[in-house]
Amino acid sequence: MSEQNRHRRPLPTGASYSITARLYAVPSASVVGDLATAVGAAGGLLTAIDVSESRPDRITVDVTCSATNADHSGEIVEAMRAVEGVTVHRVSDRTFLLHLGGKISVASKVPLRTRDDLSMAYTPGVGRVSFALAQNPDDVAKLTVKGNSVAVVTDGSAVLGLGNIGPGAALPVMEGKAALFKRFADIDAWPICLDTQDTDEIVQVVKAIAPGFGGINLEDISAPRCFEIERRLRDILDIPVFHDDQHGTAIVVTAALTNALRCVDNRIEDARIVVAGGGAAGTAIVTLLLAAGARHVLVWDREGILTPADTSLNPAKRRLAEQTNPAGRTGTLRDALQGADVFIGVSGPGVLDAAWIAEMAPAAVVFALANPDPEVDVDAAQQLATVVATGRSDYPNQINNVLAFPGVFRGLLDARAHQVTTAMLLSAADALARCVSDEQLNATYIVPSVFDPAVPTAVAASVSAAATGGRGAR
Amino acid sequence: MSEQNRHRRPLPTGASYSITARLYAVPSASVVGDLATAVGAAGGLLTAIDVSESRPDRITVDVTCSATNADHSGEIVEAMRAVEGVTVHRVSDRTFLLHLGGKISVASKVPLRTRDDLSMAYTPGVGRVSFALAQNPDDVAKLTVKGNSVAVVTDGSAVLGLGNIGPGAALPVMEGKAALFKRFADIDAWPICLDTQDTDEIVQVVKAIAPGFGGINLEDISAPRCFEIERRLRDILDIPVFHDDQHGTAIVVTAALTNALRCVDNRIEDARIVVAGGGAAGTAIVTLLLAAGARHVLVWDREGILTPADTSLNPAKRRLAEQTNPAGRTGTLRDALQGADVFIGVSGPGVLDAAWIAEMAPAAVVFALANPDPEVDVDAAQQLATVVATGRSDYPNQINNVLAFPGVFRGLLDARAHQVTTAMLLSAADALARCVSDEQLNATYIVPSVFDPAVPTAVAASVSAAATGGRGAR
Repeated sequence: MSEQNRHRRPLPTGASYSITARLYAVPSASVVGDLATAVGAAGGLLTAIDVSESRPDRITVDVTCSATNADHSGEIVEAMRAVEGVTVHRVSDRTFLLHLGGKISVASKVPLRTRDDLSMAYTPGVGRVSFALAQNPDDVAKLTVKGNSVAVVTDGSAVLGLGNIGPGAALPVMEGKAALFKRFADIDAWPICLDTQDTDEIVQVVKAIAPGFGGINLEDISAPRCFEIERRLRDILDIPVFHDDQHGTAIVVTAALTNALRCVDNRIEDARIVVAGGGAAGTAIVTLLLAAGARHVLVWDREGILTPADTSLNPAKRRLAEQTNPAGRTGTLRDALQGADVFIGVSGPGVLDAAWIAEMAPAAVVFALANPDPEVDVDAAQQLATVVATGRSDYPNQINNVLAFPGVFRGLLDARAHQVTTAMLLSAADALARCVSDEQLNATYIVPSVFDPAVPTAVAASVSAAATGGRGAR
Repeated sequence: MSEQNRHRRPLPTGASYSITARLYAVPSASVVGDLATAVGAAGGLLTAIDVSESRPDRITVDVTCSATNADHSGEIVEAMRAVEGVTVHRVSDRTFLLHLGGKISVASKVPLRTRDDLSMAYTPGVGRVSFALAQNPDDVAKLTVKGNSVAVVTDGSAVLGLGNIGPGAALPVMEGKAALFKRFADIDAWPICLDTQDTDEIVQVVKAIAPGFGGINLEDISAPRCFEIERRLRDILDIPVFHDDQHGTAIVVTAALTNALRCVDNRIEDARIVVAGGGAAGTAIVTLLLAAGARHVLVWDREGILTPADTSLNPAKRRLAEQTNPAGRTGTLRDALQGADVFIGVSGPGVLDAAWIAEMAPAAVVFALANPDPEVDVDAAQQLATVVATGRSDYPNQINNVLAFPGVFRGLLDARAHQVTTAMLLSAADALARCVSDEQLNATYIVPSVFDPAVPTAVAASVSAAATGGRGAR
C-alpha cells in the first residue's frame, strides 16, 4: 500500500478487478476450503468456487474473486498457488474477457428471409423511400434510424482519468457509453472515435457526419477545446449537441445539491457554494447552478480563487471569474471555504483537507467527485459534514452521469429537438431531484439508484416537455 | 403503360410495391370475392385478404396485394373502391411501414443488470482496458467492436437510379446495406451519410472516423470522384477500403462470366468481351476481367468505343482505353459487337438492340445489368443469346452484389486485413463461381442464390486466405 493510501480507507474490491483462475489440485478433503481461506486471507472477495472436473489424480477448481487492483489480483493468485498440492493453470481477467469482440453490435430490425423481404428493405423498394425523403427531408428522422440514433464522439484527449490516450484506446469507453444508452433509454448510439485533435477539423468532421444522427454526444474531449467545439457545432447543426462531461455532470450535481439542501433545510439562493475545479465539469456546474438560482458561488482552481483581475486566466476561466466573483475575492481553497455551506470538487485527489470542513458553516455539504481518488478523505469528511457525495459506487450518494444522459437524449429525440437549452438541462435536473421522494430522502440518499427505471422516463418526459414548450411531467 | 414500355415485358408486381388497404363494406355474401376479383382484374397480385371486423352494418376487410408501381397501386385501390358497397378507409404502403423507425438498431452484447456489470463494462473497469489499449494499440480490434465493424459511407451523390439525392435521402439505402451485412455475414455495419461532396473533405472525414472501424465500404459515390476518393483512402488508411459499386459488381460479374463461359465451353482468355459503360462499375469490371486473364476487351460508352486517340476522354476513361484498345479501334456499340462472344452492360436502358446479338459470335453471352430497365429487351435477348443475365430478380441469373460484399468483408475482418488487393477480389470471384457445382450449372443458373448460406462462407474463406497469404478454401 502506498504512503498516500495508508491514511485512507483502502480501495474496495470490485468486479472491475475480478479474475477467474483455473487451478489443478491433488484431490483432498480440505483443498477447496484451503483455497477459499487463502483468497480471503489475501484480501480477495470470493464470488464463486467450482470443482469443474474430478479425476482420481487431479481435480480442476475454478475460482472467481474480486480484488482491489491488478497487483492485488497477483497477490491473490500467489496465495492460491501457495496452497499445498495446487498449481495454477490459467488466470482470466473477467473485465478483459467481457470486452473480447466488443460490447455492442448492430441488429437488423426487419426480416430478411425472402426475396420479398429484400425487395422492401433494400432494392428496389428502398428506392421509393429514398425518393420520398429527397422530396420531404423532414421525414428522414421518421423513416430511418436517425430518429433514434446518437453519435458518441471523442478525440480521445481526456479519457476518464487516463488523459490523452487517443481514439483507439478510447473506443471501449465510447462503446460502454453506447451500451448504456441502449440499456437505459433504448437509444441507438454509435461510437465515433476521431483521428484528430484539431478543433477546426473536429467541428468539420462532426458536421459532415451529422445527417445520419439525431443527436451528438461529445465525450472525453479536453478543456478548453471542448467549449469551442460544442459552441460551434451548436451554431451550425440542426440536431442537439451535448457534452456529457459538462452537462451530464452539471445536471446530476444540480439535482444532488437540490436534494442535499432539502436535507439541511437550506435554499440554493442562500447557499454559499465553493466549486473546486474550473475545467469542463466545473464550468458547466457553475453555469447550471447560477441558472438554478444560486447567488453565492466561488470557483477555485490551481490559480487560487478565480478572480477577474487575474490576467493569467484563460478566457474560459476569466469568464467564470466574472460570473462568480465580481467582488474580486482572492485566496486559497481554505480561504474560500470559511463559512461556506457547500463544497463541490471536480478537480483532483486530496485538494481538500478534511479539517477545513470544520471551518465551513454548520450542516456542510461536501461533494468530492474526483475519481477514483476523491478530493478529501471520505471517511473523515463524513464525520464533519452532514451530506457527503462522491463519484464512487462504494460510498452512499454516487454522482453518476448515467442518471442523466440516457433520459436527456431520450427526451431530445422524442421531441425531435434541434438544440439543447439551459431550460432543458434545468428541467432534467429538477426531474432527477424529484425522483427521490420526501420519504426516501435522507443524507445518505440524495440521488436515486441508476437502476431505478423511473429515472430515465422522468428525465426524458421533462426534457421533452421543455423542448416542445409543454409542461414537464412533474 | 408508356410508349416505351409497350414493346417490353411488363414490369412484374413485387413486394416492393405492395400495399395493405383497409376497406369498409356493406355485409354481403359476395363482397370478399368481388374484392379479390377486382384486385386480379386490375393486375394486382393478392397476397392476403382478411375480414378483421364484422358488424351487422359493416365489415372491415384488410387487403394486401402487390403492384407494379405507385400508379398501379392507385389503380388497384380505385378498382376496389368501385366494388359496390365498398369504401376505402386507409391505404398503407408496406415498404414505408417497414421503414418506420429505421431498419437497424444497436444492441448491447454485455449484461448491464447490476453495479458489478456496470463496473466492468463501463467505469472503472473499462479504464483498465483503455489503458491496456493505449499500451498495445494492436489489440484494439480484439477488444472492441472495431474488429467486426464496417462504416458504410456515402455522400448521396449517386444513389441507386435516383442520382444525387443527398445524404439524408440516401440513409435508407445505407441502413439496408448495414442490415444485409448483418444478415449475411454477422458484420456490425453503421451508415455514415456525409454532408459534403467535396473529394478532399470526404477523404479527410473518412480518415478521421476510421479508428473505430475495421473496414470502409464506400457506397453510391459518383464517378469519377469515387476513384480518387478510394485511391487516396487506400493510401492513408490501415484498414481495407472497398467501393462496392465498383468491386462488388466486378466480383459478381467475373464469377458469373466464369460460369457462363463454362456453359458455352469458352475460356476467358479467348473470349471477345464488350463492356458497355465506362463508369465506376464498368471500370472495375474491366480491371478485374483483365486480371482474371481476359485479353480481348473493348469498352463502349457515349463517346463510342473508348480509344486512346480520343483526347476528349476524362483521365479514367483514357486509362480504360489504353488498357483495352491499344489498336485504336473506333466505332459504335454495334461495330464493337461484331463477332464478340460477350456483352456486359452497366450503362443505361435500351442501348443494345436485340437484333445486334445475331451479329455476335455463336453461343453469345449477354449481361444486361442496368436497373430497373436493362440495356436490351430481355425476352428478345433470350431468343438470340445462349446465356442472359440481368440485375433483376424476375429473370434467371440475377447479378446481385449481395453475393459478394458480405463475404468479402467477413474475410477481410477475419484476416485483420489492412488493405484490399486485386488478388483478394479475384479469389472472391473464384470462390463465388465455384459455389455453382457442375451438376447445378446451366445457362439459367450461373450464380448461386443469395440465400445460399454457403456463399458468404466460401467467399470469406477465400478472401481471408488471400489476405493472409494462405490457400483459399477451394
